[in-house]
Amino acid sequence: MPRIIDGINSPGDLKKLNIPMMNKLAEEIRELLVHTVSQCGGHLAANLGVVELTLALHYVFNSPVDKIIWDVGHQSYVHKILTGRKDKMPTLRQYGGLSGFPKYEESAHDVFNTGHSSTSISAALGLALARDLKGEKYSVVAVIGDGALTGGMAFEALNHAGHAGTDILVVLNDNEMSISKNVGALSSYLNRLRTQPSYFRTKEEIETVLHKIPGIGPNIARAAGRVKDMVKYIMVPGVFFEELGFTYIGPVNGHDLHELTLVLANAKKMKGPVLIHAITEKGRGYEPARRNPDIFHGIGPFDVDTGSPIKKTVKTYTEIFSEFIVTKAEQDRNIVAITAAMAGGTGLESFAKKFPDRFFDVGICEQHAVTLAAGMARGGLRPVVAIYSTFLQRAYDQIIHDVALQRLPVVFAIDRAGLVGEDGPTHHGVFDISYLRSIPNLVIMAPADENEFLDMLETAFTLDMPVAVRYPRGVGEGVRIEENRNIIAPGKSRLLQEGKDLGIIAVGRGMSIARDVVKLLQEKGVEVYLVDARFIKPLDEEQFIKMAKKVKRLVTIEEGCLAGGFGSSVLEILADNGIEADVMRIGVPDEFIDHGKVEVLWEYIGMNPVSVAESIASRWPDLLDYKKWELFRFGQS
Amino acid sequence: MPRIIDGINSPGDLKKLNIPMMNKLAEEIRELLVHTVSQCGGHLAANLGVVELTLALHYVFNSPVDKIIWDVGHQSYVHKILTGRKDKMPTLRQYGGLSGFPKYEESAHDVFNTGHSSTSISAALGLALARDLKGEKYSVVAVIGDGALTGGMAFEALNHAGHAGTDILVVLNDNEMSISKNVGALSSYLNRLRTQPSYFRTKEEIETVLHKIPGIGPNIARAAGRVKDMVKYIMVPGVFFEELGFTYIGPVNGHDLHELTLVLANAKKMKGPVLIHAITEKGRGYEPARRNPDIFHGIGPFDVDTGSPIKKTVKTYTEIFSEFIVTKAEQDRNIVAITAAMAGGTGLESFAKKFPDRFFDVGICEQHAVTLAAGMARGGLRPVVAIYSTFLQRAYDQIIHDVALQRLPVVFAIDRAGLVGEDGPTHHGVFDISYLRSIPNLVIMAPADENEFLDMLETAFTLDMPVAVRYPRGVGEGVRIEENRNIIAPGKSRLLQEGKDLGIIAVGRGMSIARDVVKLLQEKGVEVYLVDARFIKPLDEEQFIKMAKKVKRLVTIEEGCLAGGFGSSVLEILADNGIEADVMRIGVPDEFIDHGKVEVLWEYIGMNPVSVAESIASRWPDLLDYKKWELFRFGQS
Repeated sequence: MPRIIDGINSPGDLKKLNIPMMNKLAEEIRELLVHTVSQCGGHLAANLGVVELTLALHYVFNSPVDKIIWDVGHQSYVHKILTGRKDKMPTLRQYGGLSGFPKYEESAHDVFNTGHSSTSISAALGLALARDLKGEKYSVVAVIGDGALTGGMAFEALNHAGHAGTDILVVLNDNEMSISKNVGALSSYLNRLRTQPSYFRTKEEIETVLHKIPGIGPNIARAAGRVKDMVKYIMVPGVFFEELGFTYIGPVNGHDLHELTLVLANAKKMKGPVLIHAITEKGRGYEPARRNPDIFHGIGPFDVDTGSPIKKTVKTYTEIFSEFIVTKAEQDRNIVAITAAMAGGTGLESFAKKFPDRFFDVGICEQHAVTLAAGMARGGLRPVVAIYSTFLQRAYDQIIHDVALQRLPVVFAIDRAGLVGEDGPTHHGVFDISYLRSIPNLVIMAPADENEFLDMLETAFTLDMPVAVRYPRGVGEGVRIEENRNIIAPGKSRLLQEGKDLGIIAVGRGMSIARDVVKLLQEKGVEVYLVDARFIKPLDEEQFIKMAKKVKRLVTIEEGCLAGGFGSSVLEILADNGIEADVMRIGVPDEFIDHGKVEVLWEYIGMNPVSVAESIASRWPDLLDYKKWELFRFGQS
Repeated sequence: MPRIIDGINSPGDLKKLNIPMMNKLAEEIRELLVHTVSQCGGHLAANLGVVELTLALHYVFNSPVDKIIWDVGHQSYVHKILTGRKDKMPTLRQYGGLSGFPKYEESAHDVFNTGHSSTSISAALGLALARDLKGEKYSVVAVIGDGALTGGMAFEALNHAGHAGTDILVVLNDNEMSISKNVGALSSYLNRLRTQPSYFRTKEEIETVLHKIPGIGPNIARAAGRVKDMVKYIMVPGVFFEELGFTYIGPVNGHDLHELTLVLANAKKMKGPVLIHAITEKGRGYEPARRNPDIFHGIGPFDVDTGSPIKKTVKTYTEIFSEFIVTKAEQDRNIVAITAAMAGGTGLESFAKKFPDRFFDVGICEQHAVTLAAGMARGGLRPVVAIYSTFLQRAYDQIIHDVALQRLPVVFAIDRAGLVGEDGPTHHGVFDISYLRSIPNLVIMAPADENEFLDMLETAFTLDMPVAVRYPRGVGEGVRIEENRNIIAPGKSRLLQEGKDLGIIAVGRGMSIARDVVKLLQEKGVEVYLVDARFIKPLDEEQFIKMAKKVKRLVTIEEGCLAGGFGSSVLEILADNGIEADVMRIGVPDEFIDHGKVEVLWEYIGMNPVSVAESIASRWPDLLDYKKWELFRFGQS
């Protein structure tokens, strides 16, 4: 039987279909989604939930003339399939292939890049106001989840849009959960909208709303036929949004294409800011994802029949943190844990289960999370805030202003620091060293392996001041975990070996690279002085100066941006102490790094062990027989 | 006649007063406020507006056992007066004196430091949750303005507090304006609450609310006497807050001490999150401030009789920007201007007047402001976002994620960069160089004088990418403004003089210091190679390398934090190019800098010209006759 999907190469092709055909197409898209993500990994549950919604949007609107902005953007696979990219789906999230998020460089249909939460309404309003000023005509649609709506900047944008009054459509994709189960009063409110019997507006109120639809005119009776279905959705319960200046329409069944296309078509004609509240189900159409949307939010390759992910053998840093914090909290009842809609991703689920009263998932609200922690610390608690490096960017001001300035003992567990791989440039955690190390009163650590990680976490809770521990996504080094923990003196590095030819100072996962570089160099007879910095702040000045004086040539290795990063701080202390040394810094260069496997990205930026060894050989040819440097690469292959 | 204020040395003294005496005290406090601010400068209008509210809070609550958190905190002078600090008021905002903001280090009554907007509810909720977990008993009150309430993180906190359900009191100090006239749908909503005739709840609803007050019991009739006045304020209009889980009480006359104390006393007994909506008037009791609350928001010393500020003769950078952007917008109709409740402070008021359709004050919403600009840039406009350095910290993630990643042509006009003086550590703009320069795709400039500033602004609009121009608070160098503007090639520095002994690379206001340092050194026969970097990013690698090779000794001068700052970036390019040089970096050290006059702070951190010259002489004694170095200081005095 011919597949409908084979004939869909642009949104225009969609407009020839009728509802039953689109329902058939929805099925085919779901098959493609499950197949693709089982191979490439990705965000499955969210995409399965928006198949009909995306179909309806592209059926009613005319992309890319009309602009559709996907909040967060991990739910944009269906949109990509419908906008000429279905054949590239097998390259999803792979280096050089399709991004897992909307990307303007990839397609004009991806009108605004997203990745972080709660930006879509601001961007959409910006486009709408630009359209008005330039006298252009097009529709602007922001599709935002109920989780993303909890983010403060979404509220800032709603508040502005409601006031500005320009034509803008916000589609609230309410799947009753963000990444974790949703929290907050707004969530309860949406739940009431979903479940309580709705009642109609007064006749006068309905008339007012109907007047916003051009061509309706004052005669309700005459228009009744056209707007019969419309009226059904115009109800008082959305008063929260109405008070912000939006016309609220909903709730709408987000899987009913007839209902969706009708409501969208009418909303398209309405004046002013409109919010459509669509109810969808995450994971719809693929039972394992529907049952466990949290697991299938972002997932690696899995078995389609069973839904089981391919097992790994080594523990992740997240898992180690997860176990640590539960044990620690048993010993110290002042410990509380805060996350921003990432209970699973940060490993706090077991903490939440064991200590529900001491666990706070605040929704996608990094700003509030950090200041809340500051308040709790002032109140005598010992809060740990677990947030990914890239998302913590959103609480930068709060870290400075509310935590560090008051020197409050908040522990930041910064997961996904460094390159994160397939999620790409919006998600790489490469800025945290730079943005944190300029903040006074802050101790920053990065572990080289699992034992050091546990020592650092233990150390963090002994310090009466703000402490950050940054650690990478994924598995650790696979070392045996020792029973006894060591408290590390702030700033104290770890000397691994002394050597006369070259010094390497590495930090965090940089140490894993450094160890391999040392092996490669030692095979060529180079004696390396190797130090694991452990601390990004404060630095082990004494050790680094001693090294610099002894070897004169230093290499720093960090998994973070070079501009203002760790290597830069090593340069600073050398300069401040008047030590002249020849320093080469290895890290992330001054550009946004694409998506792809971490190993591929390391190779691209020249920070895999072979590349680093080559850079050393090329910078200091006298160190080893220069003509032999190519052997590094041959030796690896 | 004896003054009541003389007997007030702690909040306890207040509790002996009756309402007429407190009204008398309010008058005396207003006199003290006007007198103090006319001498020291500061935030007058806001404090005049909260005199009765602060009296009522300290009358009803028992600080510091009960915790009162002042959002933003510039309205905390009355609180300071009542909590044992009235005699220190003459030291307000001066180095070593009282801070203009709540400061825990200053008094236990200042339970949580503030300065930036919209943090108070998060901090209060943190304290309240800590109290619950530790089994303690006290009240927690957040006092937040209607302007601060527009900030997204205030909404995040309301949403969480409403859900958490713990006892917390939010006092909405609604003075119908933040710093500029308030904007947004929420503002219109509050306006409706203020002006529309309110109607009572149904009997059942009132009963529900009354049940939250302990000791009331189910018998409404019996309780009626006690709660008669209370009921008056419990109305449906606060549905927006009610939907978020708060009990809304209001509006209340924020200048009626009888009403205020009664409502607060009742609210204190209520369970769960309560919001009191108090209406106040900025500048109340001092006519010049009441008429011009915008001017009297933050003001320098002024004449009490006329309210006229002491005139300055040299234009501020803000004024120069203000004139530039109006002229530029006349030439290019795609230029739009965005600010976050700082139309006056950023100099955008004349733009707003001239181009109302192209001006967007989004309220205290830095995050939304930046992403809105990104959306507008995508829509073909040329947005300039004018925000103070310290407040732009709040949009750090949006600059990376929404602007730089998409390389969108947004111009950031970053006012108040560097030390701001009397507003102190929460307001110094010392982090922006560090946090911006690690962001790819961004050009960053800092002008040494007015002409360079205009050239940079002109240049910014020629570049098809994100550009930031950072400039200091206050007056420029007083140079004559040239008519013709020069477009500067990105990264191109300005050579001022060549010299063989020492190189100085300065940027921004660092150049003003550098010039004086050069004079001091030249008097001692030191020949200085002086370069104005102009660009923080990209750097003038060629020039700096040439300099380093020639003089071997370099000094960098910047008005920003040294950690990861401009000097650090100079170290980076020297290291990357294998150039060994002895570099001394002058800038803001790794600590939070107190409040006080900028010149005093420069002296403290060793970056006034004499200190810098001394540091140079002490680091390189062979440069000049070392024994004579003290002459720098004598020469100045």
